[in-house]
Amino acid sequence: MAGVEPCAAAAGALGLEAVLEAATRIRGRAHRTPVLGSAWLDAATGATVFLKCENLQRTGSFKFRGAVNAVGSLSEAEARRGVATHSSGNHAAALALAARRRGVPATVVMPRGAPAVKRRAVAGYGARVVECEGGLAAREAGLARVLAETGAVPIHPYDDDRVIAGQGTAALELIQEVPDLDLVLAPVGGGGLLSGTALAVAAGPARIRVVGVEPAAADDARRSLEVGRILGARETHTVADGLRTALCERTYRLIRRHVEAIVAVEEPSIIAAMRGLWERTKLLVEPSSAVPVAAILEGTPSARGLRVGVIISGGNVDLDRLPWQEPS
Amino acid sequence: MAGVEPCAAAAGALGLEAVLEAATRIRGRAHRTPVLGSAWLDAATGATVFLKCENLQRTGSFKFRGAVNAVGSLSEAEARRGVATHSSGNHAAALALAARRRGVPATVVMPRGAPAVKRRAVAGYGARVVECEGGLAAREAGLARVLAETGAVPIHPYDDDRVIAGQGTAALELIQEVPDLDLVLAPVGGGGLLSGTALAVAAGPARIRVVGVEPAAADDARRSLEVGRILGARETHTVADGLRTALCERTYRLIRRHVEAIVAVEEPSIIAAMRGLWERTKLLVEPSSAVPVAAILEGTPSARGLRVGVIISGGNVDLDRLPWQEPS
Repeated sequence: MAGVEPCAAAAGALGLEAVLEAATRIRGRAHRTPVLGSAWLDAATGATVFLKCENLQRTGSFKFRGAVNAVGSLSEAEARRGVATHSSGNHAAALALAARRRGVPATVVMPRGAPAVKRRAVAGYGARVVECEGGLAAREAGLARVLAETGAVPIHPYDDDRVIAGQGTAALELIQEVPDLDLVLAPVGGGGLLSGTALAVAAGPARIRVVGVEPAAADDARRSLEVGRILGARETHTVADGLRTALCERTYRLIRRHVEAIVAVEEPSIIAAMRGLWERTKLLVEPSSAVPVAAILEGTPSARGLRVGVIISGGNVDLDRLPWQEPS
Repeated sequence: MAGVEPCAAAAGALGLEAVLEAATRIRGRAHRTPVLGSAWLDAATGATVFLKCENLQRTGSFKFRGAVNAVGSLSEAEARRGVATHSSGNHAAALALAARRRGVPATVVMPRGAPAVKRRAVAGYGARVVECEGGLAAREAGLARVLAETGAVPIHPYDDDRVIAGQGTAALELIQEVPDLDLVLAPVGGGGLLSGTALAVAAGPARIRVVGVEPAAADDARRSLEVGRILGARETHTVADGLRTALCERTYRLIRRHVEAIVAVEEPSIIAAMRGLWERTKLLVEPSSAVPVAAILEGTPSARGLRVGVIISGGNVDLDRLPWQEPS
């Protein structure tokens, strides 16, 4: 899905500047989310941990930042055409609300089998939902039809500089509030959040180390960096459903350049970390958010003695189906 | 359980001054918890709602404030004797940690049937747990034995000026951060939080209206104010297990003097509000915290057009037994 790229930094030179511009653009539109500590995590890791709580962001995830920046970057002529995407997850809800806030029509292509609760969320934020069959090909075909019919501007969930720059504003706010961090961790699926985080802190003047974390069951990013080319996501089954997607060329390049390492964590560790976060920090986080926390609880990367920031990516969870209640 | 009352304001004249002193005493010991807004609650109530998030307080509830203030108020001689209480809930965990932080021995009398998770929490904070039979009489007898054996200072969960003043610091911080509130809501069980809240804001120079909310299934506070004397808690069954206790003379007097009204909400409203808070605000709150939110969602008291503060009292929940999963 090709994005329209009006911003100056689009030609391969995306950097901190784009994140700073995004921060200006989203100010007053996205929440400046709180940064919270946890005596439990500090004791368990030997680190001083700072949680950047994007689960408290509008629409319940960091995705709202990228969506607001992308929608806010549209020219008046583009805005009249509207925006569209295919997604059944957090990006869809984020784009729907970001578009409504600017008075821009939004269309979301969603597989017929998507959970009713997700459909309702997207429709509740005012987007038009267009059904398609399951599978990536059907979704892409559905989106192509929408674009042809409406002339809408496609906004990809991560293969888009405006989106990546927007996602980086979470880490930017984190280091503004806690400037002397040693290490920042973020989960990695398609790589939009990790790329933006790296631009904000590793590519910035502070040169803070950035490590990405993914489920071992969906460790395509780690393997991609190892072999030096993008490997597709295997047919995977991880509780961290937001992290099943593969990198794209754009995020692969940014991550290879600015991210120190990608580590992977096993499913039981993710579920234990998620439950620990719920019980001990009282933050309702989705499984993807527990992935980097699981990594430091496991000791890889070692956080001992360090000041560690973690991007808590979101909190959209089906409360009728919690991972520790399901037969595994 | 008679409290030792070293503070000057003890003789019936408890006021804002005691809350201000408590705020100084607990500074750097208890968290200054965040105040969060919610677009969902604003839309649903027509108000602008500010949630004072005591679920993010140490030990997961506002009780830590009162415990820290009480333990911090002890003379050196008293501190050497240690502290004791009977409780199986948030006060026990709060007192245990507050005592450990000052290096003071703590004993908690707990009924044999108390959930293992609560026992572990209290023991995990370093307190000695003494078992007793179920029922208030057995708990009081158990505590009396501990006091006789150890000479410990009893710290009652709410019938204690130091505790009440400490609880009031949550509302004090709230109005420091959002000074132009019209109304503050707090749940009421034994009345410690509501009394402290009233001292901080209704008895303060801002004279903000304070309303208490309790479950209709445990509406002894409302009925007590109606008939003009303390009515005991009926044998009740409410999901808001922290609010089953009755007022004491101390909290009854403060509430009668400073609180505008007590309203009651039904069980289904409490559960719906709790689930709404989880889903929409991503805050893990216990049922007691959902009680005042349920009230404004129901429109009593009317919050429309007002700036409303709500004390979110805590977040200690059994994640294996959520109210919307139980047969009701």
